[in-house]
Amino acid sequence: MRYAVIGTGALGGYYGGRLTLSGQEVHFLLRSDYEHVKAHGLQVDSCNGSFHLEQVNAYSDTSSMPVCDVVLVCLKTVNNFKLKRMLPPLLGEGTLVVLIQNGIGVEADVQDMFPTVQLVAGLAFICSAKVAPGRVSHQCYGHINFGNYSCHDTARLDTVVAHFNAAGVKAGLVEYEEARWKKAVWNMPFNGMTVALNTQTDLLLGNPYTRQLIRAQMMEVVTAAQHLGVENIGEDFVQDMMDMTDAMTPYSPSMKLDYDMGRSMEIDYLYSRPLAMARRAGCPMARLEMLEAELRYLSVHRAVATRSTTSGR
Amino acid sequence: MRYAVIGTGALGGYYGGRLTLSGQEVHFLLRSDYEHVKAHGLQVDSCNGSFHLEQVNAYSDTSSMPVCDVVLVCLKTVNNFKLKRMLPPLLGEGTLVVLIQNGIGVEADVQDMFPTVQLVAGLAFICSAKVAPGRVSHQCYGHINFGNYSCHDTARLDTVVAHFNAAGVKAGLVEYEEARWKKAVWNMPFNGMTVALNTQTDLLLGNPYTRQLIRAQMMEVVTAAQHLGVENIGEDFVQDMMDMTDAMTPYSPSMKLDYDMGRSMEIDYLYSRPLAMARRAGCPMARLEMLEAELRYLSVHRAVATRSTTSGR
Repeated sequence: MRYAVIGTGALGGYYGGRLTLSGQEVHFLLRSDYEHVKAHGLQVDSCNGSFHLEQVNAYSDTSSMPVCDVVLVCLKTVNNFKLKRMLPPLLGEGTLVVLIQNGIGVEADVQDMFPTVQLVAGLAFICSAKVAPGRVSHQCYGHINFGNYSCHDTARLDTVVAHFNAAGVKAGLVEYEEARWKKAVWNMPFNGMTVALNTQTDLLLGNPYTRQLIRAQMMEVVTAAQHLGVENIGEDFVQDMMDMTDAMTPYSPSMKLDYDMGRSMEIDYLYSRPLAMARRAGCPMARLEMLEAELRYLSVHRAVATRSTTSGR
Repeated sequence: MRYAVIGTGALGGYYGGRLTLSGQEVHFLLRSDYEHVKAHGLQVDSCNGSFHLEQVNAYSDTSSMPVCDVVLVCLKTVNNFKLKRMLPPLLGEGTLVVLIQNGIGVEADVQDMFPTVQLVAGLAFICSAKVAPGRVSHQCYGHINFGNYSCHDTARLDTVVAHFNAAGVKAGLVEYEEARWKKAVWNMPFNGMTVALNTQTDLLLGNPYTRQLIRAQMMEVVTAAQHLGVENIGEDFVQDMMDMTDAMTPYSPSMKLDYDMGRSMEIDYLYSRPLAMARRAGCPMARLEMLEAELRYLSVHRAVATRSTTSGR
């Protein structure tokens, strides 16, 4: 089976690297790191064992890549508009496209672009970063869950799960909607709040006011999911997420890293899409809508030290 | 009639100065500016005509001040705990205490300290700042409304209104509860949001997301006020506030100035008190509770200041 990795960064470099190391045929699409990886290979520093891939099937454009059986899309969702042009050269009979991305609504939009393609959601639980050209640093966690969105060739999906596990990446199958909304319970409060208050997870939970706010925001997601027919997520899951985050190393979510690095934030799929779905279901998430507005504002007025012309009360 | 001004800053310096200029007997309590004003008097730069008071009845402690007929309290509410010690020397038979302060709940708390004193709320609409020792800069607006909280000597209150008008300060009488809540409709969104997003009024209203948020926050205050029995505030008042702010010079509310100067923010009376009242009335203000949590967080972790020093894109 032939794999393609679209976006060889923190996720694509790690998962694609592990699959290559375990003997799978993997073809990597790179952008800025293409020349470097072509010449020097790919380095993965990992808490589960570091490794270097000398020879990498590296490409700077999908038009020169072969048709693949499985495409792992590891782009930031802000770049998903590029898939319309990028994906076709890779698609053959029954190609399975795995969107290892954050948020809610990505599969629906990619399916609109490619109505017949088989789509799977990839939910990565990993702390990883691209720290230099051709160099990925995997700090902790690393497991991935797959949620079937529109894949009828479940044998192929099972094979992908088996390949990940054989490559040393714990992988499993989960129910698509439930998994996406469960991830949103954590993602929606923490990604935005760390940006809005320029902070990280431990400080938000250490302050009694923001701790209560984070819990209220999580409950908004749970309530919205229930209104949208996603069961099996309740208040106990919120408690699990609070406990898990309390136990975690102080953490800056991906949106915080994007903001700090001057990159676009994934507001559309992390906020606007689920917020719109909740509103349509008659269950608006007031606090998370407010957070969306703050993020939209900050995405335009970034680090602008404003000076008032008048002052007083 | 004898006036005392407690807190000779942007408000106390301006209103007390105008009353003195018009011939009233005014006694000023000063803190850091005491020596300067004692020696050099008080300078008021005003869009309505600047003036200098050579001889000022200046005091550094209320224990040396005479009993007064009217006390104008112009402290920040974070200092109201000091009133318990400050006020008694000034109080005589029928002394009227005017709280020219922001927020909701201040009168109730001061009344608890002094159960028999006659209290009036002073609602100032003014852009003014203390720019140097003994020097106040009044940029625009300036009118003040008085809301009777527990004053039975209405003749004296009428006289105060007349004195202000005679001093060139437009003044009127308003219904206490309605006036405090109307001011909260503007104060609650703008004071906190300019701090949370490190910005000012025009930028908040110029962004479609934060504009909608500000309106939603105003509606939360209106709805809460209605639940608390305060009528005559409706959606049309929200529209008036939006229009007024659109027409205003870009503006940094007092809480933004306090935050930027490293001073305590008036979170208790601007947020916590009205929010608690609304919750008890079964009408929680979700967005403004979130804003309160953000402000509580920022009052401990001064993160926005950090953000404005880091570089953007």
